[in-house]
Amino acid sequence: MLHQTTLTFHTRGRGTTNITDNVSKVVAESGMRKGLCTVFLQHTSASLILCENADPDVRRDLETIMSRLAPDGDPAYRHDTEGDDDMAAHARSILTSNSLTIPIADGQLMLGTWQGIYLWEHRHAAQTRQVVVTVIGDT
Amino acid sequence: MLHQTTLTFHTRGRGTTNITDNVSKVVAESGMRKGLCTVFLQHTSASLILCENADPDVRRDLETIMSRLAPDGDPAYRHDTEGDDDMAAHARSILTSNSLTIPIADGQLMLGTWQGIYLWEHRHAAQTRQVVVTVIGDT
Amino acid sequence: MLHQTTLTFHTRGRGTTNITDNVSKVVAESGMRKGLCTVFLQHTSASLILCENADPDVRRDLETIMSRLAPDGDPAYRHDTEGDDDMAAHARSILTSNSLTIPIADGQLMLGTWQGIYLWEHRHAAQTRQVVVTVIGDT
Repeated sequence: MLHQTTLTFHTRGRGTTNITDNVSKVVAESGMRKGLCTVFLQHTSASLILCENADPDVRRDLETIMSRLAPDGDPAYRHDTEGDDDMAAHARSILTSNSLTIPIADGQLMLGTWQGIYLWEHRHAAQTRQVVVTVIGDT
Repeated sequence: MLHQTTLTFHTRGRGTTNITDNVSKVVAESGMRKGLCTVFLQHTSASLILCENADPDVRRDLETIMSRLAPDGDPAYRHDTEGDDDMAAHARSILTSNSLTIPIADGQLMLGTWQGIYLWEHRHAAQTRQVVVTVIGDT
Repeated sequence: MLHQTTLTFHTRGRGTTNITDNVSKVVAESGMRKGLCTVFLQHTSASLILCENADPDVRRDLETIMSRLAPDGDPAYRHDTEGDDDMAAHARSILTSNSLTIPIADGQLMLGTWQGIYLWEHRHAAQTRQVVVTVIGDT
């Protein structure tokens, strides 16, 4: 059995949005009891991550680390069509992940206690982001 | 057809454990001949990686590289609840991967000659780690 | 339903190859209308990435960033059996991705407008790379 839904999120610029409940709702709607849920982001300047969900400082520190690994406005970049954060956003996307695959049991995402699903916006400006959730398994 | 098992590993602190045989055994038990095997880690301070499986120096060098990209005890981190390796462990997890999807043919994982599946512990202390293996395909 | 094909690519050394059309062709051949396509690389010194597909400078800048994060010939590396780019190639592979999972709808990959599938060779010499494409879903 297969169930597929596209979710739309309006981000408010660089930072993370917890979308665990949105994805869980699609799993519930699918009626699937056991299987896999894949979450896919249709963009190259944002990410999907499974991150510690208790202390917001973790996501703040991730920003700090990423700003070193792929700094905004680095003079070495050639690509800056959309501004200083353009290439940095693509690099952050490549260094993290673009899709997640999470097992389902008893009709629920088998996330660990401290795992939350986050949409990580890497552009400074607000964006509209499409996330495709596909559930495959047994009812 | 779908088969799902949770494996438990007791790590001995930072470093890698080759879990290829453990995952292969689940694939054999599933009876699936063709399909996909997903391996999912229920934690945010360890990783699952497909790494060169012949020379242990590769994994040692990966530690060297990671200790530069996400150093322990960086004064810029806000999150240090569980010690100097706490935030570094989360960052290492985000920079690598949390789940793997490997094709199956003829009842076996289609790994390349040099690919091994490794559980990479990022905390210094020993931990118990849960890994969910889901096999989906045709018998 | 399940369809699986192995594609062979001959890279010309470090750099990216757009393989979107090759993967799309496998999806078309599968006859699957809705489901998931997974693309898996059987090597540990190259990557599969979803990258911006309009400006080649993005991939050039990614090389610049990677050459900082995992430089060739770093004196700290122990593993250099196959040369200065050996360990750097493994590290680049671990920092990016080894497999992609992309949803399918209406018989087509649900890629965003700016997303292309790239095989990223990290070795300087030309290599032969095997990519396994598995399509799972409903016809």
